[in-house]
Amino acid sequence: MKKIVVIGGGTGNFVVLRGLKKYDVDLTAIVSMADDGGSTGILRDDLGVLPPGDVRQCLVALSDSSRLMRSLMNYRFENGNLGGHSFGNLLLSALEKVTGSFEKAVEEAARILYIKGKVLPVTIHQTRLKMILNNRKVLEGESEIYLSKEIDKGYKSIYLEPYPKVNPRVITEILNCDLVVVGPGGLHTSLIPNLLVQGVSDAIAKTQAKKIFIVNLMNRKGQTTGYKVSNYIKELGNFFEKDVFDFVILNTKKPQDNLIKMYSDEGDLVENDLDDSRVIYADVLGEPIEQSKGDLLIKRNLIRHDSIKLANVIMGIVDNHCL
Amino acid sequence: MKKIVVIGGGTGNFVVLRGLKKYDVDLTAIVSMADDGGSTGILRDDLGVLPPGDVRQCLVALSDSSRLMRSLMNYRFENGNLGGHSFGNLLLSALEKVTGSFEKAVEEAARILYIKGKVLPVTIHQTRLKMILNNRKVLEGESEIYLSKEIDKGYKSIYLEPYPKVNPRVITEILNCDLVVVGPGGLHTSLIPNLLVQGVSDAIAKTQAKKIFIVNLMNRKGQTTGYKVSNYIKELGNFFEKDVFDFVILNTKKPQDNLIKMYSDEGDLVENDLDDSRVIYADVLGEPIEQSKGDLLIKRNLIRHDSIKLANVIMGIVDNHCL
Repeated sequence: MKKIVVIGGGTGNFVVLRGLKKYDVDLTAIVSMADDGGSTGILRDDLGVLPPGDVRQCLVALSDSSRLMRSLMNYRFENGNLGGHSFGNLLLSALEKVTGSFEKAVEEAARILYIKGKVLPVTIHQTRLKMILNNRKVLEGESEIYLSKEIDKGYKSIYLEPYPKVNPRVITEILNCDLVVVGPGGLHTSLIPNLLVQGVSDAIAKTQAKKIFIVNLMNRKGQTTGYKVSNYIKELGNFFEKDVFDFVILNTKKPQDNLIKMYSDEGDLVENDLDDSRVIYADVLGEPIEQSKGDLLIKRNLIRHDSIKLANVIMGIVDNHCL
Repeated sequence: MKKIVVIGGGTGNFVVLRGLKKYDVDLTAIVSMADDGGSTGILRDDLGVLPPGDVRQCLVALSDSSRLMRSLMNYRFENGNLGGHSFGNLLLSALEKVTGSFEKAVEEAARILYIKGKVLPVTIHQTRLKMILNNRKVLEGESEIYLSKEIDKGYKSIYLEPYPKVNPRVITEILNCDLVVVGPGGLHTSLIPNLLVQGVSDAIAKTQAKKIFIVNLMNRKGQTTGYKVSNYIKELGNFFEKDVFDFVILNTKKPQDNLIKMYSDEGDLVENDLDDSRVIYADVLGEPIEQSKGDLLIKRNLIRHDSIKLANVIMGIVDNHCL
């Protein structure tokens, strides 16, 4: 069975995992531990737990449990002191307290949710994402970085503090898989935070596995404003000693104009400027989805990848290139 | 297989169910829906859900899941806005929101926890326990009644408002079982609130099942100060048209003097004044248990029934009287 490692965090990971889950593959999700916003941020601050939000999304993506259980995991309380907390985050945090370890909490939640594959936090140590901008301003925390509108003016440094030890199982999985999938996802907030953990980018460079990069559909204003495909590849390249990606998956189907317009406050379409044999052109565009009231990030669900189309393209690469 | 119905709420129910679970019997826990204190009270007020706390305790008592899952259900968050909330209460409340019904929430939680038997809320309608004291003071809510120190001066009336429809499955279970077990538990806060729901006491009086009353070990100061066994029987008798209990289980082993002393702020030992063929005298005293930090009611765990001894006595009645 092919071993596929998916690296990221948040909604991008969810889409890739949900699609690949339907295939007979051995899946591992490696998840950024930098999230500190919303429900996750409150739990980190109040309870001193590791950030559960991105892990929760991956667990739900890989879950074979009932639709009800998956809805429960994503359910957000609407009122009172619990308002905004996702139930799945509370489950992971309570399990961390009861078991005494975030890793055991993830394993136990994986068992409760009958997940197919594995979900591995990239590190099991507390750390914060920080960024020093060109104007010397320091952004502290993933949520501050996520909200910043000046990152596209350039940054000197992005780093995790304290510099965390990697979860050793992450390195083993990367070195022993057949395919590594990076993206889609927030460049600075979901993808790079994985590469900043000790040993992760070296392992990706070193593994014999083929590496796929899935390009985001949209830029994020103030963060990757006006980025073209090559800008993404180049910026990710800064974290490796060599150009690592064997394939780049690029969407060819333009979203509806009205959706692009509705999204325009958030950002614009990522244009292609790459003419490279590595690029796989494919229609991987999804339908816009309805959202629950609790979700604050309405616009990013308007233009998104389709998990089934994306998985088809990834598995096509596996088949055509005899990985 | 013998069908046993256990009626109450709170810790008393837990002890009886935990013991009977080890026998090959068909168990149903009928649970008071009057609780409105602590974590349960906040959830009722903030989310408009039905009270989860007593149901949670019964589910845990009947659970065949891992020790970890049972610890998780009883885990109380210690800090921040979540402080004091039990995880199991949050699970039931989130399930109620996701399924749209408290009954379905209990069923789903029962499935997650692999429970043996059934847990039935006595009503699935919102209601509050109220009490009018002899001095005309009105106590509103179970938690206010629980804390009152003047109930032993007499009350005119105890009632649920609004007067709730019974959960029809409760009546079916009572009418079709072999044995009904009432108590131990708070007389006004756990036992009587079940009898106040439309049809419940009539069903208990009408069923062919034998009825056992398990007498509390300790009185609660200001509530049942100085009550003897006959006082409990008499007060419960007010809610039935006839004297319903076939057996009364009475503890014979005196708790250690130092524990009685430590408990003395809370209340004194229940003395027996009953000389009646119905009384089953037995050592059903448990060991005092260690408590977790989150639990506010430390003293009631000092002197408590032993679940195994209690179950032995109950099953002895079943065997000796060919029920």
